[in-house]
Amino acid sequence: MQADDKRKLLARLARAEGQIVALRRMVEDDAYCVDVLTQVAAVRGALAGAGEVVLRNHVETCVAQALQSDDLAARDEKVDELMDVVARFAGRRR
Amino acid sequence: MQADDKRKLLARLARAEGQIVALRRMVEDDAYCVDVLTQVAAVRGALAGAGEVVLRNHVETCVAQALQSDDLAARDEKVDELMDVVARFAGRRR
Amino acid sequence: MQADDKRKLLARLARAEGQIVALRRMVEDDAYCVDVLTQVAAVRGALAGAGEVVLRNHVETCVAQALQSDDLAARDEKVDELMDVVARFAGRRR
Amino acid sequence: MQADDKRKLLARLARAEGQIVALRRMVEDDAYCVDVLTQVAAVRGALAGAGEVVLRNHVETCVAQALQSDDLAARDEKVDELMDVVARFAGRRR
Repeated sequence: MQADDKRKLLARLARAEGQIVALRRMVEDDAYCVDVLTQVAAVRGALAGAGEVVLRNHVETCVAQALQSDDLAARDEKVDELMDVVARFAGRRR
Repeated sequence: MQADDKRKLLARLARAEGQIVALRRMVEDDAYCVDVLTQVAAVRGALAGAGEVVLRNHVETCVAQALQSDDLAARDEKVDELMDVVARFAGRRR
Repeated sequence: MQADDKRKLLARLARAEGQIVALRRMVEDDAYCVDVLTQVAAVRGALAGAGEVVLRNHVETCVAQALQSDDLAARDEKVDELMDVVARFAGRRR
Repeated sequence: MQADDKRKLLARLARAEGQIVALRRMVEDDAYCVDVLTQVAAVRGALAGAGEVVLRNHVETCVAQALQSDDLAARDEKVDELMDVVARFAGRRR
């Protein structure tokens, strides 16, 4: 991952961490359930955004490299792995 | 929220926070993208689990109370709010 | 379900059915993968919209009735069932 | 798309179409909401399965070809398009 992308990704994750700290405080302070759920959705969204950055990087580097190779078994394996990651990203597999 | 549920929820959130700290370290250490994405999915799953606990509590308390009231406008408003929360939980709205 | 809601829901489902027919034709005619995937997302979205209508109706009738009852076991069972339905709606369970 | 994959995909879509017909009948016959929602989830799952087949095919053909090209702008465009499709598949964009 390029230095610039990595810095941005780490900033996003730091923000998500801060959001979880805020979430714990809300629960401790007995905030209204719907506000807690809104915050849960915000953190999950932030993490999905971070996941998209990593996924894009993965496609542009590892997957691109495998797809350029002549080793058909290695290509298939990489595509299997990508599909598995996408399915988990979409909440279709655990 | 009852003391016992609240303690369990806070423990789940503390775990999710720990998972994000681990995630940042993985990114800093240039871990393999797919492992990073697996960890992102794990934290998102943990947060969704926490959200389910809050949502259940919300239904059993606030929604139950509103549905028992004779104030039809207040009932409708609570059901609107619940549907909105469920839609966001399902990633159908932001 | 009230007659009006039912008519609207049936209209939505008829539309989703038409979209699947269009989808099959696209696949038969070797349409571009991304256009096929866009159409798949459209049908899934239409079905999720139909599901929201049914879920809302369920909360306003069956769940409301159970939450007004004095039978605590029946209430718990209904809330369990609702949470299960919401989790499946959110793609969290099969 | 290869003839064999295409036949399987069309069979899946025909099945999803049959499931929607069954769904409409359930609504017409005033089936229990939770059973209707279970059927909605089944059709959505079937469509997501069909979407995964198309997405895999897309990666193995169009994306693979673009990633092997020397035209960096064309590569970027294809990756943008893929990420957009994945985000929609994951319900992250409309």
